[in-house]
Amino acid sequence: MLSIILSGANGRMGRVIQEMVTHHEALTIVAGVDRHTGKTDFPIYQTLSEVNETADVVIDFSHYSNVDTLLDASVEKQLPIVVATTGLTSEQFQAIDHAATKIPVFYSANMSLGINALIQALKTITPILEADFDIEIIEKHHNQKKDAPSGTALLLADSINETCREKKTYIYGRSGTENENPRHELGIHAVRGGTIPGEHTVLYAGLDELIELKHTALSRDIFANGALKAAQFLATQAPGRYSMEELIATQS
Amino acid sequence: MLSIILSGANGRMGRVIQEMVTHHEALTIVAGVDRHTGKTDFPIYQTLSEVNETADVVIDFSHYSNVDTLLDASVEKQLPIVVATTGLTSEQFQAIDHAATKIPVFYSANMSLGINALIQALKTITPILEADFDIEIIEKHHNQKKDAPSGTALLLADSINETCREKKTYIYGRSGTENENPRHELGIHAVRGGTIPGEHTVLYAGLDELIELKHTALSRDIFANGALKAAQFLATQAPGRYSMEELIATQS
Amino acid sequence: MLSIILSGANGRMGRVIQEMVTHHEALTIVAGVDRHTGKTDFPIYQTLSEVNETADVVIDFSHYSNVDTLLDASVEKQLPIVVATTGLTSEQFQAIDHAATKIPVFYSANMSLGINALIQALKTITPILEADFDIEIIEKHHNQKKDAPSGTALLLADSINETCREKKTYIYGRSGTENENPRHELGIHAVRGGTIPGEHTVLYAGLDELIELKHTALSRDIFANGALKAAQFLATQAPGRYSMEELIATQS
Amino acid sequence: MLSIILSGANGRMGRVIQEMVTHHEALTIVAGVDRHTGKTDFPIYQTLSEVNETADVVIDFSHYSNVDTLLDASVEKQLPIVVATTGLTSEQFQAIDHAATKIPVFYSANMSLGINALIQALKTITPILEADFDIEIIEKHHNQKKDAPSGTALLLADSINETCREKKTYIYGRSGTENENPRHELGIHAVRGGTIPGEHTVLYAGLDELIELKHTALSRDIFANGALKAAQFLATQAPGRYSMEELIATQS
Repeated sequence: MLSIILSGANGRMGRVIQEMVTHHEALTIVAGVDRHTGKTDFPIYQTLSEVNETADVVIDFSHYSNVDTLLDASVEKQLPIVVATTGLTSEQFQAIDHAATKIPVFYSANMSLGINALIQALKTITPILEADFDIEIIEKHHNQKKDAPSGTALLLADSINETCREKKTYIYGRSGTENENPRHELGIHAVRGGTIPGEHTVLYAGLDELIELKHTALSRDIFANGALKAAQFLATQAPGRYSMEELIATQS
Repeated sequence: MLSIILSGANGRMGRVIQEMVTHHEALTIVAGVDRHTGKTDFPIYQTLSEVNETADVVIDFSHYSNVDTLLDASVEKQLPIVVATTGLTSEQFQAIDHAATKIPVFYSANMSLGINALIQALKTITPILEADFDIEIIEKHHNQKKDAPSGTALLLADSINETCREKKTYIYGRSGTENENPRHELGIHAVRGGTIPGEHTVLYAGLDELIELKHTALSRDIFANGALKAAQFLATQAPGRYSMEELIATQS
Repeated sequence: MLSIILSGANGRMGRVIQEMVTHHEALTIVAGVDRHTGKTDFPIYQTLSEVNETADVVIDFSHYSNVDTLLDASVEKQLPIVVATTGLTSEQFQAIDHAATKIPVFYSANMSLGINALIQALKTITPILEADFDIEIIEKHHNQKKDAPSGTALLLADSINETCREKKTYIYGRSGTENENPRHELGIHAVRGGTIPGEHTVLYAGLDELIELKHTALSRDIFANGALKAAQFLATQAPGRYSMEELIATQS
Repeated sequence: MLSIILSGANGRMGRVIQEMVTHHEALTIVAGVDRHTGKTDFPIYQTLSEVNETADVVIDFSHYSNVDTLLDASVEKQLPIVVATTGLTSEQFQAIDHAATKIPVFYSANMSLGINALIQALKTITPILEADFDIEIIEKHHNQKKDAPSGTALLLADSINETCREKKTYIYGRSGTENENPRHELGIHAVRGGTIPGEHTVLYAGLDELIELKHTALSRDIFANGALKAAQFLATQAPGRYSMEELIATQS
């Protein structure tokens, strides 16, 4: 049984984590950290330092401004911590590296198991297909999303580019009558509509054959699931910084 | 048995038509018109006027510059004509209208049965969904295509717009951090790669549900098939101008 | 402002309806009916007869066993009622018909606006394509779904069949080396996996062209949305029985 | 410049190879082998032994009954040979192994570069996702295809199964009300219609996320392209038996 301290327990993702843990035999939440109180099955504290319960791991889904304090308290308590908060500053990445010399710390640009598996697949096939196939990305999100393309689309594009011998140039749409469509051009197309949680397709188009690798998120719960996977992985690691890539390596 | 005079018999589409007719019991080609000679199962003439064979209908897949001469000869011979050539000038459309007072003339912006069926489906569902769904179009073509978006994508967008109460504004890509994605915005995304003959998807994205209408061309033969359908339809019509819309109306 | 009495207020769909109404300016829930109590913004009654508040319409998401009592009380109160409960018996359909002589009653085999729009599209294009295209259905649902194919897949197949001149025979998979694949055969393929809420694709495959019509549910909330649409529609109707088909007809 | 002897030069695939080579600067066909004569840019011989021209490699797209004679003649001439013929018997596989002790021989169950890249991707992600995702395969082919599922679908399924800890059981459709959908069940769904050259999708369905890997063939030319790739690869190899897996390994 893995016992968890949940930071950001009363936020949206905190509630998703709670719901998931109730259906998971091998997991239990022993304490929460949140500025806000709420109805929970475990005690809530204002800060991690105040928590009395012993635990195996901390999961943080609070706010990036809490990360420094949380890392300090985790080091003090010698607790592994999964940082699932987004929007970290470069100083906070340094704080993560520093804490990682003393405790296991998990951070990943995308917490979904599926997206990270997709990245591994891209790294596998891009070198095979690069010389004969054009590559394009199509991503779809809800109409409230203001940035385009999505961070995940750029993460996928960068993963492709890292394994390409000839580097790609990103473009974000096409119009007019003079498109040359050179092979080094990688179009990233941002489709927006309704309440789409997130869909990413990478298309390899060659001589009379196409390969498409597609990831569909049905809800934002996939990040909660990834964080729980990460917690189970992290609890048995030595101090150091870990990401989905290391977690995935243990499964394959 | 429908007997056809094939204009542009030795061009790429002419050869596709010939191949199709050999597999079709109810169709036969009795003569061809082409400046170039070639190995055919029927006599080839330089112009339609010279053709001695009697026939039920003319199919033209030659070049837009021949259209005027062809229309004159068709009127003279009182032969229905399917104009499947693209790139017509506005004068030529007037010539079609003029000839159509005396013989049946068929012309359609897109000769594929499937694209025209898709347009009917768009006209059916757009008014139902308009108030609650965002609409976007994604089209994919080979990397040699220089124009974007495709003429067919614009044809689909215009068909949607015609049935919308609130008219749509077309955009051709998204980037940056300030996209508001208003409902009246219709994104048309041109994906390019490999040898893709043509794929068009219309996406309706609403509150937790999506509808996608997709047309895939596996080759350019679909235009030949549409032309043969048109010829069979046209042979029994009164003088007038016809398009895929009228052909389709007879089937539903 | 449309005032609603919500039957089954504390069930899963009842809570979804409540959440939606809070974001909808033109709607309000004035009372709930449920055997179970729960935290709601409105009073809860054991039966519809006991409700004191006046309202414009009843929405029922309770249990099919309640339908008779609900219909009687709706007739007594002269309230239009949307029956969004599933699993009705043939006696209950008769009870609906009987009540519909005195009040407006809404019932639809599928409460999603999108699925019903899709059905209209199928009815539009099937007669156009029937002679030249094979038709197949692929549906995907979560791994807990025991029946196959889905009721909605059969609803789509039946809608296609109704408009076909040559009736289709349904098959539910293919194996072996002797498949003749005659045109009158309509394959319905039930894919199962993970937590997929529901995806239905109708494929029309012809000579070098494909048309696909696809509906994706991102959650079961789409039925709540359809019920609210139905309530707004029903409040202004004369006594009679209505379904999504009539609602859709008013929008197109 | 790679000089090729083309066996089966006047067959369907032979003609596709000829067409491709005319567009390829680094390739030339110096002689053909075929029982039938035909109009070609190079001399045609009845058997490989009779060919006078020197060459770098043989490509065979003839008929499995010719394979033994071809292998003998290739060994005699010390010519690398790409066997792209299908339907080989187990004796012929032994003959390939025997010849491969003296010359380089290339044989692959599927000659498409894309399908083989897809197999590598499946082997990469299956171990990562196996514990949390259900796996299903959907394949689509033309209505003249009598066997189901396709050989390629089974090749993909077997590739998945080889990397799975818990082996999968294949099923070929679902119907009725008692489907338990256990994780070890791998559904393979054979969709048939029109002239579809071949489409294969592998679906991984997990907790609120899906991954789909899809290969689309736009024509059967992809096997010709793969054979030419194989010929270029094989010309510089030592004696031995090679397949797409080794070719791909050199590209990544």
